Amino acid sequence: MRMTEPLPYDFSSGNTNPETYPGEALAEAAARVIPELATALNTYPGKLGHEGLRRLLAARESAREGVEVDPDHIVLTNGSMQGVTLVAETFCEGTGDRVVLEELTYNGTIEAYRALGIEMVGVPVDGSGMRTDRLAGILDEMAREGRPPRFIYTLATYQNPTGAMMPPARRAELLACAKRHGCLVVEDNCYGDVHYDGEKPPALYAMDDWPEQVHIGSLSKIFAPGVRLGYVLARPPLLDRILARRHDAGPNTLSAAITTEYLGPDLWGHVERANAALKAKRDAMLAALEAHLGNWCSWSRPVGGLFIWVRLPDGLDTEALAARAAEHGVGFRPGSEYHVAGKDIPYIRLAFGFPDVATIEAGIARLGECIREAMVPA
Amino acid sequence: MRMTEPLPYDFSSGNTNPETYPGEALAEAAARVIPELATALNTYPGKLGHEGLRRLLAARESAREGVEVDPDHIVLTNGSMQGVTLVAETFCEGTGDRVVLEELTYNGTIEAYRALGIEMVGVPVDGSGMRTDRLAGILDEMAREGRPPRFIYTLATYQNPTGAMMPPARRAELLACAKRHGCLVVEDNCYGDVHYDGEKPPALYAMDDWPEQVHIGSLSKIFAPGVRLGYVLARPPLLDRILARRHDAGPNTLSAAITTEYLGPDLWGHVERANAALKAKRDAMLAALEAHLGNWCSWSRPVGGLFIWVRLPDGLDTEALAARAAEHGVGFRPGSEYHVAGKDIPYIRLAFGFPDVATIEAGIARLGECIREAMVPA
Repeated sequence: MRMTEPLPYDFSSGNTNPETYPGEALAEAAARVIPELATALNTYPGKLGHEGLRRLLAARESAREGVEVDPDHIVLTNGSMQGVTLVAETFCEGTGDRVVLEELTYNGTIEAYRALGIEMVGVPVDGSGMRTDRLAGILDEMAREGRPPRFIYTLATYQNPTGAMMPPARRAELLACAKRHGCLVVEDNCYGDVHYDGEKPPALYAMDDWPEQVHIGSLSKIFAPGVRLGYVLARPPLLDRILARRHDAGPNTLSAAITTEYLGPDLWGHVERANAALKAKRDAMLAALEAHLGNWCSWSRPVGGLFIWVRLPDGLDTEALAARAAEHGVGFRPGSEYHVAGKDIPYIRLAFGFPDVATIEAGIARLGECIREAMVPA
Repeated sequence: MRMTEPLPYDFSSGNTNPETYPGEALAEAAARVIPELATALNTYPGKLGHEGLRRLLAARESAREGVEVDPDHIVLTNGSMQGVTLVAETFCEGTGDRVVLEELTYNGTIEAYRALGIEMVGVPVDGSGMRTDRLAGILDEMAREGRPPRFIYTLATYQNPTGAMMPPARRAELLACAKRHGCLVVEDNCYGDVHYDGEKPPALYAMDDWPEQVHIGSLSKIFAPGVRLGYVLARPPLLDRILARRHDAGPNTLSAAITTEYLGPDLWGHVERANAALKAKRDAMLAALEAHLGNWCSWSRPVGGLFIWVRLPDGLDTEALAARAAEHGVGFRPGSEYHVAGKDIPYIRLAFGFPDVATIEAGIARLGECIREAMVPA
């Protein structure tokens, strides 16, 4: 179980940017707040967790969405992934339960659902996210079969892996379909606020007061995954069901207190600085792709998030490419990991958050070389 | 979901001692280590988690048990309670699976198992913990029924709620029974090292190299529950099964790094200081019980852990006592919460870790008054 050495040009994981890590300021925040935590650290956090962080997150949601959010409707979790799993455990009763989701989606969600015995029903995606024009038919068919989904799971914003941003009209259509079928909607907004260009469409819960909605958020992407601070936003009675399924004696007080002390006074300033640096990395990767893969591939131009989704040339063996790239020090994720049925598709996902610009440029050049060699054998 | 005000004489929860909280030293540790965490916090922790803390915990286990422990066999969890739940999720397949455990045990475990649909088969306990002379018959009967347990869960050390310490001979008998039936043993040692008097019997995994064992540990009780750092110790292939069921993207790096920086250089010094203060609280509570409840009740004299288990007089209504005590500002837990079948038993659990000695003395005096009033109506 020892970790293998990471590749020098590693574009595989949704890690964040160490260059904008506020090490000194975070250390100062920790030094300020830790002496005040005698009671907070020596008692259990409750199932909701640190009140100060819940207030900050409610304010974050309110600022982005323009609706009031009650801090007592926010459940802190060990990263948003504990939230994804907890919500599935809450609303799925056992093997064979069905969930509708984008056909291409986060591999962590796919792995969790698969392990829980959930049957995933994929909806096709395009450059605007879930094809909501197909959703109605899928839900109708499932209803006819007498096996409706337990919920619809969607990454509407900065969709992983495609980077797609679902426009407001599709969001409205998704909600209309769900309401017609009385189907719970779970919106995973873990990339929320990692935003570079254009408008931010509203979150689903902000478009419609319909109560059958769960919203999942995170500090992993706007701050750091190592603080393991995600959250689930839900109103009673959904909230109570989620809390009743939680059995870990509550979330991390130390991490929440330090993070709140640092981020609280200037959340949006931090987000702006982090996004500016990430946008430069995105742009560097897009430019390198143009320079080195332009003859062979096409790719997404994401307005947010941490990933570029690359269409490989027809006939290229993704596994062979991955092996060749690894030999040249380049890591990425094959597209099949993001397909709900594990289908072999001619795509790869490139993550640009962690590596610096020079690494991005050199690594994409190497990747281009690997693809060229595969397509034009010597 | 807002918290209710805690009672002024609160003996209800297994909180720890704020008086020995090393606020300044922990703040200094955080200030030292946080600037070094640029990569660690901006990447995902893996399913095992922070390597430095795993090394420290392996050293802790080795020092206590005298056996070598591989840090790569330690899975960090969000407190030991995530470990308890994760192990049950891993080894139980669905509703109706059975687990054998002490008839009186930790209410968090009972709640989690109940929520998972696990059928709990209780073994009677006495002042030496699980009645292992009864265990063989129970396992034989379950085998005859064709429904053997998925595992035996035991709090062998400083048993919650009874405070019992299982002697080595019973530990050996428990292991012999489990081996005869090929039954996994899950030892929850979350109170480990909160020790006041006498010998420490070996952990089960240290008595026998038999691989079908999982050991659960924690820093919650020797350090602080708010750091949410527990662990599961298991060898492959059990380890791999547990990791495969984990879907929270890994444990908390920030909390682990700070805690390791503080505890690493002087773990046992910290434990000694914390235990000395807790022992004084235990002794204060025992003395107060003698002074104020001596005529009516009997109670455990735990050699470790955070709880005293009080036998109420026959005929006293526990619920009515709880209500009366709460009116006088005194909180405790009724014994029924710790019975696997929720049986109404004439016991209450008193926790002495958090309140100071003066609060313990005044609160137990009030509790004695409540009992006297209930037994000798005016």
